[in-house]
Amino acid sequence: MSHHLLLVAHGSRRESSNDEVRALVDQLRQRQRRQFSQIDCAFLELATPSIPEGLRHAIECSASRITVMPYFLVAGRHVVEDIPAEVDSVRQQFPGVKIEITDYFGAQPAVFDVLLQASTAD
Amino acid sequence: MSHHLLLVAHGSRRESSNDEVRALVDQLRQRQRRQFSQIDCAFLELATPSIPEGLRHAIECSASRITVMPYFLVAGRHVVEDIPAEVDSVRQQFPGVKIEITDYFGAQPAVFDVLLQASTAD
Repeated sequence: MSHHLLLVAHGSRRESSNDEVRALVDQLRQRQRRQFSQIDCAFLELATPSIPEGLRHAIECSASRITVMPYFLVAGRHVVEDIPAEVDSVRQQFPGVKIEITDYFGAQPAVFDVLLQASTAD
Repeated sequence: MSHHLLLVAHGSRRESSNDEVRALVDQLRQRQRRQFSQIDCAFLELATPSIPEGLRHAIECSASRITVMPYFLVAGRHVVEDIPAEVDSVRQQFPGVKIEITDYFGAQPAVFDVLLQASTAD
């Protein structure tokens, strides 16, 4: 089974901001423990690849399962409505591929620990 | 010296998303080691208080120094242009108050560790 990870960020008109996400994905590829056959990123808006493009690319690369992780801090409309809608549009076209959306990044309890740490440093 | 922390998030039309930020701030207040006299949040758009409102509130509460922390994952235009512009507009009105902006949250190296951990859990 080929299990891909798609990290989905908001996307920015500032290309260096999108590159920051691409660099994170590069680091993940180097550091993760071979759970995922492939790791890529996609953007909700303002940058490419879009979510459908990212999902289709994974499917072209033989993904049989794709985990979409929203790289967002809070569960606003992008997380609750927009990303699921984009994912659904592709899911319906490829019923043989298991596409799931994980909790958004900010839901990780460790995020608070980082914030606490960051707010204590001066 | 009264040193305040203002955590600045994007803001959402989804009020529960803004409440998530307010709850984070509540937790920070309970857990932080008395570095800040007061901790509050403000929103760049779509929610209140706005950044100028948050800064003015801190100043009304006798802040002589305010640390603004952008609660954003990547350095898009909101972080690089919009938040500094909002802060500048208030800074000019209160030259006696030291208002500084820290690195955005996603610049914390530990954020990558959380992402790595989150992407390894299944």
